[in-house]
Amino acid sequence: MLEHRIRHIGLRSRVVMAEEAQTWIRDGMTLGVSGFTKSGDAKAVLQALANRVEQSGERLGINVYSGASLGETDGILSAQHLIRRRLPYQSDGLMRKAINAGEIDYVDQHLSHTAEFLRGGSLGEIDLAIIEATAITEDGGIVPTTSVGNSPIFVQRAKHVIVEINLNIPEAFEGMHDIYQPLCRPHRQPIPITSVRDRIGRTSIPCDPEKIVAIVPSTLSDTPSSIVPADDDTLRMAGYILDFLGHEVRHGRLPEQLAPLQSGVGSVSNAVLGGLVNSPFKHLEIYTEVMQDAVFDLLDAGKVSFASASSLTLSEHKARRVTNDIERYRDRIMLRPQEISNHPEVVRRLGVIAMNTALEVDIYGNVNSTHVFGTHMMNGIGGSGDFARNAALTVFVTKSVAKGGSISSIVPFVTHVDHTEHDVDVLVTERGLADLRGLSPRQRARTIIDKLAHPDYRDALLDYFTRAQRRGGQTPHLLEEALSWHQRFRETGDMRKTKNLARVM
Amino acid sequence: MLEHRIRHIGLRSRVVMAEEAQTWIRDGMTLGVSGFTKSGDAKAVLQALANRVEQSGERLGINVYSGASLGETDGILSAQHLIRRRLPYQSDGLMRKAINAGEIDYVDQHLSHTAEFLRGGSLGEIDLAIIEATAITEDGGIVPTTSVGNSPIFVQRAKHVIVEINLNIPEAFEGMHDIYQPLCRPHRQPIPITSVRDRIGRTSIPCDPEKIVAIVPSTLSDTPSSIVPADDDTLRMAGYILDFLGHEVRHGRLPEQLAPLQSGVGSVSNAVLGGLVNSPFKHLEIYTEVMQDAVFDLLDAGKVSFASASSLTLSEHKARRVTNDIERYRDRIMLRPQEISNHPEVVRRLGVIAMNTALEVDIYGNVNSTHVFGTHMMNGIGGSGDFARNAALTVFVTKSVAKGGSISSIVPFVTHVDHTEHDVDVLVTERGLADLRGLSPRQRARTIIDKLAHPDYRDALLDYFTRAQRRGGQTPHLLEEALSWHQRFRETGDMRKTKNLARVM
Ligand SMILES: CC(C)(COP(=O)(O)OP(=O)(O)OC[C@H]1O[C@@H](n2cnc3c(N)ncnc32)[C@H](O)[C@@H]1OP(=O)(O)O)[C@@H](O)C(=O)NCCC(=O)NCCS
Ligand SMILES: CC(C)(COP(=O)(O)OP(=O)(O)OC[C@H]1O[C@@H](n2cnc3c(N)ncnc32)[C@H](O)[C@@H]1OP(=O)(O)O)[C@@H](O)C(=O)NCCC(=O)NCCS
Repeated sequence: MLEHRIRHIGLRSRVVMAEEAQTWIRDGMTLGVSGFTKSGDAKAVLQALANRVEQSGERLGINVYSGASLGETDGILSAQHLIRRRLPYQSDGLMRKAINAGEIDYVDQHLSHTAEFLRGGSLGEIDLAIIEATAITEDGGIVPTTSVGNSPIFVQRAKHVIVEINLNIPEAFEGMHDIYQPLCRPHRQPIPITSVRDRIGRTSIPCDPEKIVAIVPSTLSDTPSSIVPADDDTLRMAGYILDFLGHEVRHGRLPEQLAPLQSGVGSVSNAVLGGLVNSPFKHLEIYTEVMQDAVFDLLDAGKVSFASASSLTLSEHKARRVTNDIERYRDRIMLRPQEISNHPEVVRRLGVIAMNTALEVDIYGNVNSTHVFGTHMMNGIGGSGDFARNAALTVFVTKSVAKGGSISSIVPFVTHVDHTEHDVDVLVTERGLADLRGLSPRQRARTIIDKLAHPDYRDALLDYFTRAQRRGGQTPHLLEEALSWHQRFRETGDMRKTKNLARVM
Repeated sequence: MLEHRIRHIGLRSRVVMAEEAQTWIRDGMTLGVSGFTKSGDAKAVLQALANRVEQSGERLGINVYSGASLGETDGILSAQHLIRRRLPYQSDGLMRKAINAGEIDYVDQHLSHTAEFLRGGSLGEIDLAIIEATAITEDGGIVPTTSVGNSPIFVQRAKHVIVEINLNIPEAFEGMHDIYQPLCRPHRQPIPITSVRDRIGRTSIPCDPEKIVAIVPSTLSDTPSSIVPADDDTLRMAGYILDFLGHEVRHGRLPEQLAPLQSGVGSVSNAVLGGLVNSPFKHLEIYTEVMQDAVFDLLDAGKVSFASASSLTLSEHKARRVTNDIERYRDRIMLRPQEISNHPEVVRRLGVIAMNTALEVDIYGNVNSTHVFGTHMMNGIGGSGDFARNAALTVFVTKSVAKGGSISSIVPFVTHVDHTEHDVDVLVTERGLADLRGLSPRQRARTIIDKLAHPDYRDALLDYFTRAQRRGGQTPHLLEEALSWHQRFRETGDMRKTKNLARVM
């Protein structure tokens, strides 16, 4: 079974178990590993390394570069304090703790940028790439599994490569990937994608067979995605977005079949896509980084004709169905390297509609998607910046309050900026939708406070804005109060001045 | 002389004086006017309008969309309170006052985005385009003068067009422009530029002659750029950048001929380019939005082989020389629409080196280029975001202090974010250069404080950072103190706690 998947005969002798392969990893090394939003990540060798270290008690520190978050492996490595530097994205609870404690140097990056930084030489060398694969082709090409991520650039630049062949991934996955690698400058050419479905590369990652030092069998599954089911607020937000898209079509600003859709991981995005199942829209296309469950519902319903992404990030149930039934989908989906799925060039050319989630937004429309209270990393910026900046229409969603109402997600001044006002067209909370296109900051503030804020906070926001305007400016603020809401939460556990007062105000 | 420049014979009868042409402008109209960083701007008709309003005392409000800043016309219009909405950039003192007083709705935009917003329909319709021209071709094509800016999209979308033929611009300007307009989606194709010198369009802006309602002769000159001559600090900053580029070449991260250079308006940028005249670098190329004086010195010295931009923004002396001697340069320079000069696709493909100026930066490398103390608009983000995000190497420069030392330009927390830490590779002050590539926020903070801060502020920054770290986080902050430096300046006129204390600390 395994041999059959190693079509380069000379490589068959390199099969070893993960326990042996992990000895390639030495203190101080930089690893480039497959994996994008918990999918197609290298699991066996890294987990074997964590086992070894747990048992031996030795101290070992490595840099782990990936596509995006790994599944539970990020937590397993963090538990053993194995990681010195991590990039470009993560979403694990334990790793988050280590990052916020300053134990891991976490370099949060736009997901389309990492490959360029590697090419440019500013992230050092990749000592070892570890790539999960469906198969190895006759010429040593590595066929990925449920994601592509940064694997092509890691393989290209690594001194050595370890391949984990995942025997639970059907061989029918081969053919679904589109591996295109930009040439080095000054020979760089346009990326020839003009439609979501364009195939521009090969189906496997080219690899000099000499570099493959070990091939490891694996039967570990991707860590399933845990999408919180849609609640009333989520459904309401999805409803506003669907209404808005319909409105744009009626006014001739979007065509009937909309434009290629991108949606970040999360329940609102999933609910928007879910809502499209029963919408009048047809012949939809998806150009995104992560395909969630709802994409497959849309494919099943015949609403989406093609979907391009860098990974499949599915619930346990959906993953099982899609994996086993991949023949049904493989002509209608394509997995690309993340520098292509998220490429500014392609996102802008196609005119993508981007939908992502904010932690908080300020009255002028600046968005914080990463830092809780400006300091503590949640996950990372991921691809949200790649899409928000270059999309034809950029939507951010957030509930108007968090933590039972003690936090307003609409604040005078965001504690961290991931997306500036320039890159945010539409904001949505469960209260409504604010169309900010073409508005000046003061006009944005009026709209945001009016349409999006929770009633518990609306008057206080308006009061701030009114008093700030007296001091003048393009973007009026009272700097001494700008961050006081967050400060108040720190001190009292509630952003409201006094709960009752705020309610009657 | 004028007739000779109107090669479409049917249009010759539409010649009128500016005083007559301005009557086309009515209250509430949206005008799309030529002009980019004070160059090639429509002057005669707008100034005639201001004259009329000044004399008649009537109230009239218009929206003015341009490429970037107009010359003195922005001030002339502001003096008459003529502007309701202005976008996407300005740099005039009087207009700045009106914006900050909330009298003008100023919509600050990435310069590459405005054309897309117009195509997308979210900025309304263009009632009238006013375009400065060298000539009108046989088929009604409009040959621009010293800038292209957004003129192609304005002409395409305007109901009516007024052309100002500037008789002071030599006819030899024709042939120097490269007008390419992306098709509407879903027919959009890759922009076929793979080298700075690629010509991809026509030499004039296509225009249905029927739309041209008036042709006005003009002899008004562009408002000259006022570059402050380099001082010691400026030269020092330029020196650090040149050393750094040499260092990158020696380490194989840049080729000998570097990469296409972009540099924002300003004295540091001009000094960096100036410094290249006596550097060992050869065969340099420029891919920028604005060509300043130094570009022509580099062309004269044979250091730069080709320069592409959207405008010529020159001092009075240089403008005279270049204009009269345009034949010497016209095969080595090209002026493009700003959506092409600043296009993410092209900037990233070419791997531009971007150099722009910050007002202030924070210890984590976030950059404020627009808002003085977070509220008052200076100019606008311009193209800095287009380049910073997509360049292969992004540099921001700022002096470490402003206003005689009473303001530190390195602060705990920037009062406004134009460019996030993700988009800032290298920071430079007169104290040194900080290479931030691949660093986590805490590492960035140490480097920035160490290399860039002024001695008067270094200890206070370190103290802030040290205490903030105790609270943990990816990006440690003390929110209650984060903006206190700006607050202190507001109250005492100095960011230092007490001047002497700060000095001995
Ligand atoms: C922003 C992001 C964290 C939201 O994720 P989500 O799962 O929809 O968010 P939730 O509403 O569950 O909030 C997550 C946590 O933040 C808290 N939170 C939400 N708003 C908050 C606010 N304004 N202030 C402080 N905390 C807040 C929630 O209470 C919750 O806390 P918990 O983990 O203790 O329960 C997530 O979308 C993300 O990481 N985005 C950036 C990456 C990205 O967009 N990638 C693009 C494509 S994949
Ligand atoms: C940032 C920018 C304003 C700097 O311009 P500059 O002429 O080099 O800047 P200066 O050092 O002269 O500073 C301008 C003013 O800001 C003040 N200033 C500088 N740093 C400051 C700070 N940290 N806080 C408050 N004020 C500050 C200066 O004192 C000066 O004030 P003045 O006008 O009263 O004399 C300018 O580069 C810009 O507008 N950039 C954004 C657009 C852009 O980058 N376009 C890209 C390509 S053209």
